[in-house]
Amino acid sequence: MKKIGVLTGGGDCPGLNAAIRAVVRRAIDGYGFDVVGFKRGWSGPIDGLVEPLTKLAVSGILPKGGTILGTSRTNPAKIEDGYLKIRDNLKKFGLDALIAIGGNDTLGVAANMFIKYDFPIVCVPKTIDNDVVGTDYTIGFDTAVKIATEAIDNLHTTAESHDRVMVIEVMGRHAGWIAALSGMAGGADLILVPEKPFDIEEVCAILKKRHERRGKTFSIVVVAEGAVSKDNSIKGTSDKMDVAFDHPILGGISVALSKEIEKRTGYETRYVILGHIQRGGAPTPTDRILATRLGLKAVDLVANNEFGKMVGTVGGNIVSVDVRDIAELDKHGNYIGKTKTLDMNFYKESEVFFG
Amino acid sequence: MKKIGVLTGGGDCPGLNAAIRAVVRRAIDGYGFDVVGFKRGWSGPIDGLVEPLTKLAVSGILPKGGTILGTSRTNPAKIEDGYLKIRDNLKKFGLDALIAIGGNDTLGVAANMFIKYDFPIVCVPKTIDNDVVGTDYTIGFDTAVKIATEAIDNLHTTAESHDRVMVIEVMGRHAGWIAALSGMAGGADLILVPEKPFDIEEVCAILKKRHERRGKTFSIVVVAEGAVSKDNSIKGTSDKMDVAFDHPILGGISVALSKEIEKRTGYETRYVILGHIQRGGAPTPTDRILATRLGLKAVDLVANNEFGKMVGTVGGNIVSVDVRDIAELDKHGNYIGKTKTLDMNFYKESEVFFG
Amino acid sequence: MKKIGVLTGGGDCPGLNAAIRAVVRRAIDGYGFDVVGFKRGWSGPIDGLVEPLTKLAVSGILPKGGTILGTSRTNPAKIEDGYLKIRDNLKKFGLDALIAIGGNDTLGVAANMFIKYDFPIVCVPKTIDNDVVGTDYTIGFDTAVKIATEAIDNLHTTAESHDRVMVIEVMGRHAGWIAALSGMAGGADLILVPEKPFDIEEVCAILKKRHERRGKTFSIVVVAEGAVSKDNSIKGTSDKMDVAFDHPILGGISVALSKEIEKRTGYETRYVILGHIQRGGAPTPTDRILATRLGLKAVDLVANNEFGKMVGTVGGNIVSVDVRDIAELDKHGNYIGKTKTLDMNFYKESEVFFG
Amino acid sequence: MKKIGVLTGGGDCPGLNAAIRAVVRRAIDGYGFDVVGFKRGWSGPIDGLVEPLTKLAVSGILPKGGTILGTSRTNPAKIEDGYLKIRDNLKKFGLDALIAIGGNDTLGVAANMFIKYDFPIVCVPKTIDNDVVGTDYTIGFDTAVKIATEAIDNLHTTAESHDRVMVIEVMGRHAGWIAALSGMAGGADLILVPEKPFDIEEVCAILKKRHERRGKTFSIVVVAEGAVSKDNSIKGTSDKMDVAFDHPILGGISVALSKEIEKRTGYETRYVILGHIQRGGAPTPTDRILATRLGLKAVDLVANNEFGKMVGTVGGNIVSVDVRDIAELDKHGNYIGKTKTLDMNFYKESEVFFG
Repeated sequence: MKKIGVLTGGGDCPGLNAAIRAVVRRAIDGYGFDVVGFKRGWSGPIDGLVEPLTKLAVSGILPKGGTILGTSRTNPAKIEDGYLKIRDNLKKFGLDALIAIGGNDTLGVAANMFIKYDFPIVCVPKTIDNDVVGTDYTIGFDTAVKIATEAIDNLHTTAESHDRVMVIEVMGRHAGWIAALSGMAGGADLILVPEKPFDIEEVCAILKKRHERRGKTFSIVVVAEGAVSKDNSIKGTSDKMDVAFDHPILGGISVALSKEIEKRTGYETRYVILGHIQRGGAPTPTDRILATRLGLKAVDLVANNEFGKMVGTVGGNIVSVDVRDIAELDKHGNYIGKTKTLDMNFYKESEVFFG
Repeated sequence: MKKIGVLTGGGDCPGLNAAIRAVVRRAIDGYGFDVVGFKRGWSGPIDGLVEPLTKLAVSGILPKGGTILGTSRTNPAKIEDGYLKIRDNLKKFGLDALIAIGGNDTLGVAANMFIKYDFPIVCVPKTIDNDVVGTDYTIGFDTAVKIATEAIDNLHTTAESHDRVMVIEVMGRHAGWIAALSGMAGGADLILVPEKPFDIEEVCAILKKRHERRGKTFSIVVVAEGAVSKDNSIKGTSDKMDVAFDHPILGGISVALSKEIEKRTGYETRYVILGHIQRGGAPTPTDRILATRLGLKAVDLVANNEFGKMVGTVGGNIVSVDVRDIAELDKHGNYIGKTKTLDMNFYKESEVFFG
Repeated sequence: MKKIGVLTGGGDCPGLNAAIRAVVRRAIDGYGFDVVGFKRGWSGPIDGLVEPLTKLAVSGILPKGGTILGTSRTNPAKIEDGYLKIRDNLKKFGLDALIAIGGNDTLGVAANMFIKYDFPIVCVPKTIDNDVVGTDYTIGFDTAVKIATEAIDNLHTTAESHDRVMVIEVMGRHAGWIAALSGMAGGADLILVPEKPFDIEEVCAILKKRHERRGKTFSIVVVAEGAVSKDNSIKGTSDKMDVAFDHPILGGISVALSKEIEKRTGYETRYVILGHIQRGGAPTPTDRILATRLGLKAVDLVANNEFGKMVGTVGGNIVSVDVRDIAELDKHGNYIGKTKTLDMNFYKESEVFFG
Repeated sequence: MKKIGVLTGGGDCPGLNAAIRAVVRRAIDGYGFDVVGFKRGWSGPIDGLVEPLTKLAVSGILPKGGTILGTSRTNPAKIEDGYLKIRDNLKKFGLDALIAIGGNDTLGVAANMFIKYDFPIVCVPKTIDNDVVGTDYTIGFDTAVKIATEAIDNLHTTAESHDRVMVIEVMGRHAGWIAALSGMAGGADLILVPEKPFDIEEVCAILKKRHERRGKTFSIVVVAEGAVSKDNSIKGTSDKMDVAFDHPILGGISVALSKEIEKRTGYETRYVILGHIQRGGAPTPTDRILATRLGLKAVDLVANNEFGKMVGTVGGNIVSVDVRDIAELDKHGNYIGKTKTLDMNFYKESEVFFG
C-alpha cells in the first residue's frame, strides 16, 4: 500500500479543491493508498507542514474556490538546500510519490525533483493563464474566462450609456489566452495580447472606423496585462516593488493605453483592471470536471508507477506527457515549464469582429 | 455575390444568437454576401417568412439567450409538399445556400433537402442535449450543464439542512450528457442516465451505504428525464397529451423515482424538475465561442461551395462532416440525425464518487 | 453570565447561517454568554440534540445557504408531552433563554412556550414566503425573489423564441409575496396570487389583448402555488400523499392553468415549477444583512431580559414585537403565527404592466 | 392631454431603464400622456436631442443595465445660458413637465430649474452611492452592493489560500454606504468609510489581533474610495487629470492603504479596485422594483400637478419630498443635492464583526 502526498503551488485558482478531492477519493477508494497534504505550496515539503487527507477532509470542497491546502510562490531553488530538504522530508514522511498541482513554476520544480533528485512525482496543470505546454486547458482557465466575460458584459451597458471607450485589463503576462477568449465571448471591438505587439495608430484607426463609419458611440477594448506597443512605449509600468504584488495592478497597461486612446481619438475613455477577482469564486462546471478527471488520472499514474509525467487534456482526451517534453532549462540550470502562447488562428477568428 | 439564408429550428437554446451574428458578420464583411433570416424554423421557408439580416440587426445579440429568428418544431415531412415548398421558396428568394442551425431533427431535414432535393445547405449543430453525431459538443450544451450544476449546488444546502435525498431531473430523453456532466460537476452521489437502465435495489443500496457507512444524512441524485429502470417499471409517465409539451414535466421520472426511494429507504425524499430553465438565459462564454466559431466556419463552407456538410468541433478543432455520415433513414424513408449517446467512460469516472 | 440556546425550525432558507453567526458573535463578544445550538428544529430540545456553538463553529458560514444546525418540521404539539420535554430539557441544559429562528409554525411553538410554559424565548422571523406578521421582511424572502426573478428572466428568451405563453409557478401557499415581487421585477404580463382568486376568462382576455392588440407573440404568467380560480376549479391538486412533500410540485396550479390557457386561447403554453430551488444557494446581501441585524437584536433582547418577543424590521428599523400580538390560537388551542398576506396596493402597481 | 419629457443624468447605474419603462407605461396607459426622451442627460434639453418614447421603445428594457437614453455629466451651470436653453427648448418641444432621473447633481439642476426658472419638474433619485437626502434608497444602490458583495465573497478564497490581507476598494467618495453594506454582507474584518477617518495604527492593531489572537491567517478589508486617515496621509491620490475619469481608479486609497498595512504588519497584502464594474450589469429585483415604483409615482405627481418634488422611498413607503428640503445652495448660488452620509448606527453593528 502506497503513501502519497499532494500539494498546490503558485497562484491559487478555482478548481484546485476539485482536483484535491478527486486525488483523495481515487487514492483511498480505488487503491487503498494513504494520502497526506502539504500546506502552502513547496513550503510544505521544505518545512514539513503536513496533514493527513481523509475522505471527510475533502467532503463538500468540490464547488469551492481556492485550495484547502493553501499555496505559495515558494521556490526551492531560492532556498538553501531547498531541493534536498524536499527530498529528505518526502522520504522522512515515508512518501512513495508526490502529486504537485501547479503552473509552470511548480512544473519546473517537479521536473527538477524528478530529473535531478530522482523523486517519483506526477504533475497536474493549473493556472488561470492557460500557458502550460502539453495540455489544451489548465484548471482555473475556464472560470477566469467566465469572470472576465461577465465583467465585459456588465461594462457594455455603462460604456454604451456614456458613449465611452472602455478598456478592460485581464490577466496574462506572457500569453493572451484570457484576453482572446473573453474578448470573443464578450464581443470585444478590439483585443490586444502579448503575442502580437500593437501599433497605437492602428488601434485608434480601428476605433475611429467603428465610431465614424459604423455609427457606434462606444467601444470595448480587452487587453492582456502583458500586451505592449510595438515601439515599447505603451506598456504596464510595474516596478520591482509591484512585483511583490504578484499581479501588479498599479500602472497596468490599461492606464497608459486608455490615456493614449483618449488623447488621440478624443473619445472619453475609461479603464478597469480586473485583478484578483479573476482568481476567485466557485469554479465553473468545466473546471470542476477537468480538475476531477486530471486528479483521477494522476492517481492512476502513481498506481502504475508512471512518474515524471504531467497529466493533461488534449483533443478532449485525458493524457499524460513526459515532464522532459514540456519543461526547459533556465539560465540557472533549473527546469521551468515552457510557455504555451495563444493559438493565433483563434486570434484571427476574433479579428472578424474588430471595429 | 451570393445570397444566403439562415434559420434556427427545434427547441431554442442559449448561443443561437451568437451563431447568427457570426454568420452575418462573416458573410457580409468577409465575402460581401447578402443574408436573409427565415423566421420560426422550417416554417420560415415553407411559409415565406423572411427578413433581411444586416450587421445592425445582429448588433448586441451575442450575449442573449433565445433566437432573434424565432424557432419551431415544424417538420416539412408532416406538411403536404413541405419539402417542395421549401425548395421553391428558397429559389424564389434567390438563395444560393441555406445555413440551418438545429439539432437532429433539423439536421435530418437538411439532409433530405441536400440529398433528395439537391439544395445547397450547411448545418450548424445546436441542442442542449449534446446528442448530435459528428461533433464533440453542440451549441447550448455547456450552458445547460452550467444551469443544472448551479441548481445542484443550490439544492445541496437544502438537502443537507433537512437530511433529505434530493432527486434532480434534468433534460436528456435519449442521452445522459447533461446528467453526467452536471452530476460530476455538482458532486452527485448517484447519476442515472438513459444509456444504463438502473436497478432500484442497487440505487437504494448505494444510498444506504452512504448514509449508514459513511455517516452522511443527505444525498443528491441526478437523473436524466429518459432514464428508466431495468424492469421498465420506474420511468417518466408522459402520455400523448404531454408530448405536446415538448419536454413533459408532469409525471417525470423523478416523481416515481423519489417515491420509490422514500418507500424503500425511509429517507425523506424530494424532487425538482428543472424543465425549461435549462434552455434559458445568457450563453456561457464556451457556448458563445463555439457558436461564433461554428458560424464562421459555416459561411466559409458556403463560400467554398462545400455543401451537404455539418460543421462541428472535434478534439478542439473546428471541422466539417458529410451529412450522409451523421444522418440515417427512419422508417418513413426520411433522414434524421443519428443519436450520440453518452461516452460511458465518462460515466465510469463519475462512479468513483457514487455513494 | 447567561447560557443561551439557538435553533432553526421549519423549511430551510438562505440567511439562517448569517443569523446564527450574528447570535453567536454578539453573545460571546458582546456579553460573554455561552451559546449552544439545538439540531433539527424542535427535535433538538425534545430529543436533547445539542452542541456548543463557538466563534470557530460559525466562522465562514455567513454566505452559505441552509443551516448548520439542521432543521425539521417537528411540532411539539403532535408529540406526547412535547412541550414538557422541551421545557425540561432546556432547564436540564441550564439554558437561560432560547432564540428560535423560524416561520409561523416556529413562532407559534415559541408563543406556546412563552405564554403557557413561561419559558424565556425570543424569535427571529425567517421564511421565503414573507408571510409573518410584525415584520416587513423575513429572512430568505429577498433571496427567493432573486431566484424567481432570474428564472423569469431566463424563461423570457425561450418564451419569445417559441411564441409561447410560459407559466412560472413560485412558492406561496397562503400569500403571494414571491409571485408579486418577482413578477414585477421580472416583467410578468400577469401575476396570480392567493389573495385574489382569478377568473380564467379574464386571464385569457388579458393574454389575448396582449397578443392581438399589442402584437406580442409571447407572455409570461407568474403564479403563486396557492392561487386558485374563483370557481375553485383551477388549483393545485396535491393530495395527502403530496402533503408529505412539503411543497408538492406534482399537479401544481401551473399544470392545470397552463392547459386551460392553451385550450382557451390556442397559444402554445408551457409551465415550470421552481420548487425547492427557491430555498437554495447563497443568501443575497439584503438577506445576510437582515439576518445579521436581527440576530444581533435578538441577543440584545436576551441580555435585557425582554422575552416573549419577535425581532423584526419595520420601516427600515430593527424592532421587537410581543408574540401575543402576532400569534393567534388555532382550533386546538395552540398558538400559531398569523399570516401576513400580500399588500394589495403593491399588487395594484403590478397591474399597470399586465397585458 | 399632457406631454412630458424624461432624462437620465450623471453616472449610469442599473435600474434606470426600469424607471424609464415605468414612466412611459404609466404615462401612456394610465393618463394618455405623450412622452419624449432627452438623450445624454442635460445635454438633451440643451442641444435639443429628443426622441419619442413609445411603449414599444421601452419593451424588454426592464432587466437591462445602463440607460436607453444615454447619460452625461453635462452641467448647465457651466454652459453659457445653459439653464435658459433648457427652459426654452422644453417650451419649444411643448413639454408640460420634465421627469429627471439622477443623483445629487441632477437633483440640483432640477431644483434650479424649478425654483429659479419656474419649470415644472419631478425628480427620481438614482446613484449607486445612495447619498441622496429624502429617500432611504436610490436606484442602483442595491445592485452595487450585490456586485461588491460577490467580489468580496470571491476574494475570500484567494485571501485564505495565500494567507493574505485583501483590501477591496469600492465606490463612495462622500458616503460609505456601499462599503458598509457590502462589508457587512461579505463578512469584512474591517470597513473604512469617509464618515470616520481612520488611524492606521488602530487598523493594524485590529488585523494583528485577528491573526495573532484568533489564529486567522487572512483578512478582508473593505474601503470606500473616499476614506482617509485621520492625519490625512493615507488617501486616494487622484489628481486633476484623473478627475476627468469620473471615478479615478489610479492611485485609489487602497493602493496606499495596502502598502502601509503590509509594511506595518508584515502580512502579505493585495488590493483590488472594483471601479466601473459596480455600475454594470442587470439590476437586482430590488432595484427594478424600486425604480418601477418611483417611476409610477413620478408620473402620478405630474398628473396631479405636484412639481418641484423628488419621489423617494421612506420606511418602505413611496413618498415625495420638496426639492427645497433636500437641496442647498453652493458657493456659486446654484442648488445642489445635500449629501446623505452613512447611518453610523449601521456602522456600529458592523463593528461587532471587526477583527
